[in-house]
Amino acid sequence: MPGLLVIGGSDAGISGALRARELDPAVEIKVVVADDYPNFSICGLPFYLSGEITDWHTLAHRTLAELQATGVEFFLGHTARQIDPTRKRVLVTNRQGQGLTFNYNKLIIGTGAVPVPPPISGLDLPGVFPLHTMEESFALDHNITEKKPKSVLIVGSGYIGLEMADALTHRGLEVTLVGRPKAVLPTVDAGFGQLVEEELKRQGVKVFSGVTVERIETTDNGANLAVSGSKGFQGQAELVLVATGVRPNTGLVQNTGIKTGINGAICVDRKMRTNLPDIYAAGDCVETYHHLLERYIYLPLGTTSHKQGRVVGENVVGGQRLFQGTLGTQVVKVFNLVIARTGLTHDEALEAGYDPITTESKHWDHKKYYPNPKELLIRLTGDRKTGKLLGAQILGQWHSEISKRVDIFATALYHGMTIEELNDLDLSYTPPLSSPWDPVQMSAQAWAR
Amino acid sequence: MPGLLVIGGSDAGISGALRARELDPAVEIKVVVADDYPNFSICGLPFYLSGEITDWHTLAHRTLAELQATGVEFFLGHTARQIDPTRKRVLVTNRQGQGLTFNYNKLIIGTGAVPVPPPISGLDLPGVFPLHTMEESFALDHNITEKKPKSVLIVGSGYIGLEMADALTHRGLEVTLVGRPKAVLPTVDAGFGQLVEEELKRQGVKVFSGVTVERIETTDNGANLAVSGSKGFQGQAELVLVATGVRPNTGLVQNTGIKTGINGAICVDRKMRTNLPDIYAAGDCVETYHHLLERYIYLPLGTTSHKQGRVVGENVVGGQRLFQGTLGTQVVKVFNLVIARTGLTHDEALEAGYDPITTESKHWDHKKYYPNPKELLIRLTGDRKTGKLLGAQILGQWHSEISKRVDIFATALYHGMTIEELNDLDLSYTPPLSSPWDPVQMSAQAWAR
Repeated sequence: MPGLLVIGGSDAGISGALRARELDPAVEIKVVVADDYPNFSICGLPFYLSGEITDWHTLAHRTLAELQATGVEFFLGHTARQIDPTRKRVLVTNRQGQGLTFNYNKLIIGTGAVPVPPPISGLDLPGVFPLHTMEESFALDHNITEKKPKSVLIVGSGYIGLEMADALTHRGLEVTLVGRPKAVLPTVDAGFGQLVEEELKRQGVKVFSGVTVERIETTDNGANLAVSGSKGFQGQAELVLVATGVRPNTGLVQNTGIKTGINGAICVDRKMRTNLPDIYAAGDCVETYHHLLERYIYLPLGTTSHKQGRVVGENVVGGQRLFQGTLGTQVVKVFNLVIARTGLTHDEALEAGYDPITTESKHWDHKKYYPNPKELLIRLTGDRKTGKLLGAQILGQWHSEISKRVDIFATALYHGMTIEELNDLDLSYTPPLSSPWDPVQMSAQAWAR
Repeated sequence: MPGLLVIGGSDAGISGALRARELDPAVEIKVVVADDYPNFSICGLPFYLSGEITDWHTLAHRTLAELQATGVEFFLGHTARQIDPTRKRVLVTNRQGQGLTFNYNKLIIGTGAVPVPPPISGLDLPGVFPLHTMEESFALDHNITEKKPKSVLIVGSGYIGLEMADALTHRGLEVTLVGRPKAVLPTVDAGFGQLVEEELKRQGVKVFSGVTVERIETTDNGANLAVSGSKGFQGQAELVLVATGVRPNTGLVQNTGIKTGINGAICVDRKMRTNLPDIYAAGDCVETYHHLLERYIYLPLGTTSHKQGRVVGENVVGGQRLFQGTLGTQVVKVFNLVIARTGLTHDEALEAGYDPITTESKHWDHKKYYPNPKELLIRLTGDRKTGKLLGAQILGQWHSEISKRVDIFATALYHGMTIEELNDLDLSYTPPLSSPWDPVQMSAQAWAR
């Protein structure tokens, strides 16, 4: 009898398969993976391309052998082509183009996301690279190793653009970063984005914000790429990296009767069920429930994919687990800065209909009398009327526990705490690591004033 | 008309005075301080004695001038001698022995704790030092600077003993540490204590656990101190530092009708009121409400004193704030190790009547493929029947966000989460700082297995 079939070998699919296996050692589980890289840490690619990671194999969360040891069957190089919900089967082609049929009792769709090619002419020129899959990274790495380019222009100033600016500077390239938002890192308030720009410039990166790239052309007899855009922007580099947005990879569900919504993402309930019986979906291909907004948004993140995968893995073997929702918690390291956020930014809170107050306050990461204190900037957003915590952003230097401080806020948000209630938390203190009131709490006190 | 009178210029008293001032700019506030060091960070003394902090003035959370600028009046060198609850006044003597009377409308008692001299003969010999007040620290510092001793024996293997072992090794002394518990740092499970012992030994500290020191004598014509104890222990050093327990400093409330309880600590309700009208108390001199146990214990900690001070400061000017309780959250850095805890240890959970399960699991602080991953050991204690999180302990290297990871657990404990629910938290991730499942969550998954 057919068991669980999983389409997709990245975070959501693998998490789902492994959780189902953990809870039900008897169920037959098959995973079809379009490429050869199941369970790879896509978030690690910038650190591979920077040269900090020398062996790309280490990017695997688990090796294929480890995965197979769980008794889950893997079909690499197998692309799902069509879902037949009525007969409960999926048509798949292997690398030879051969058609195969996989029957299922329960199906998990975890097809992830794909880059949205921006409206730029010249994207297909040699020397222009997207960066989303392992293969694309290998191609870029190969180009850098072989041709030793001296310069790169990165289109896109979000997380990946910034990480790549850091990575390729580390690898010795001259980096130009061009982005549409008014400041880099539009997932935090613009004031923080400006501080990140200053750090980028200190590290030698040329930054152009508020610029829409329109055209890429070869120049210097093909030795260089000329990039032009809005506001008269003109740039040149030997390589162009495109790190703009992604969209859910959901072509497979067209005409299946599976409902899709925002950006074409698959609609799921909190149990990660689609509208069709026995078909579940998780990860970057689905609409994601937001814990605070109590509605669905599209926000593809690896952490969320892992969580949704775990939830769906429970439910396909009879569980009743609900996905509790994202809070949009994110952190990025850019050179020596770490920037983290959770909940809503000021603008997001406004847009969600709150009457937000946002304060920015400055605190030492530990008692100033102890060596090497580092300044943290904390932006706290709360609702004027209820005092409810809506979001937090922290910016400061690496090694000042920013990531896990934002997680204290994330945990508080999960429980709907007010900003004032943060002062009731019993947080840890020793002079080399904090203050009697942690910066988390000092920022709460600053907000209240 | 008399306003607020505060007895004590340390964490609780100052926090109370400042919070009252913040909420009510009109109320008259007087603080009587027995010594000359209001608002000093007693927790910072080891780092002053290590030589890492060169100017002891920086140990002040706020300078006297900053404190006075709030309009609060300070009476340094003034010792409260007697409380007269009927006439609502306190008799005080100044440094000249002169008696003064302070009337009050509301009174906050924040007299702190004092060391309990252990039953050891020879405590009064030259070269034997306690370490609790600024003056004692100055005396010790002066001794080390002038006499340049080469060796010190520390009695007591709790937080302060360990921090002093680190500090005085840093200052170039040979350190011997002797403690009664079976492993150092009895506030965490003994397995962790043993790992801390190994670190101490790696750093050249001689450690003797399970030993009760009984006698200190001069030897070598007064050049050395000979220390002997149970199990035939014999040690020698030029200095002896006594860092054993403390008790509430509540002699002042004897015969006032103010009720005391555990260890003589003042009994207070959740609003920090004593049993007598208009008399409040906070900090190391009171019994502390435990959030999880839902009963009172005695646990003097600076973080708690600050919180209780803030609560009492609200209530003396008409607030209705409840102290939400301690979770016993603590962190200490010992050489390159950081050890943190929150909630109950396994033994504490047993004692509290739970049926605890404790697991220890090992995780990388960030993705192993990124440079310098560090191993974290996480001990998680949960209730067998309900799956409720009861406590967490983390041990690992400095700079692996241990302190704020334990605070995620502390925030979860505050909200009564189950261990399984920790997996629902949206925690931050980037490869240099965490994993898609943070170690906090991986330890929860290990516990469930």
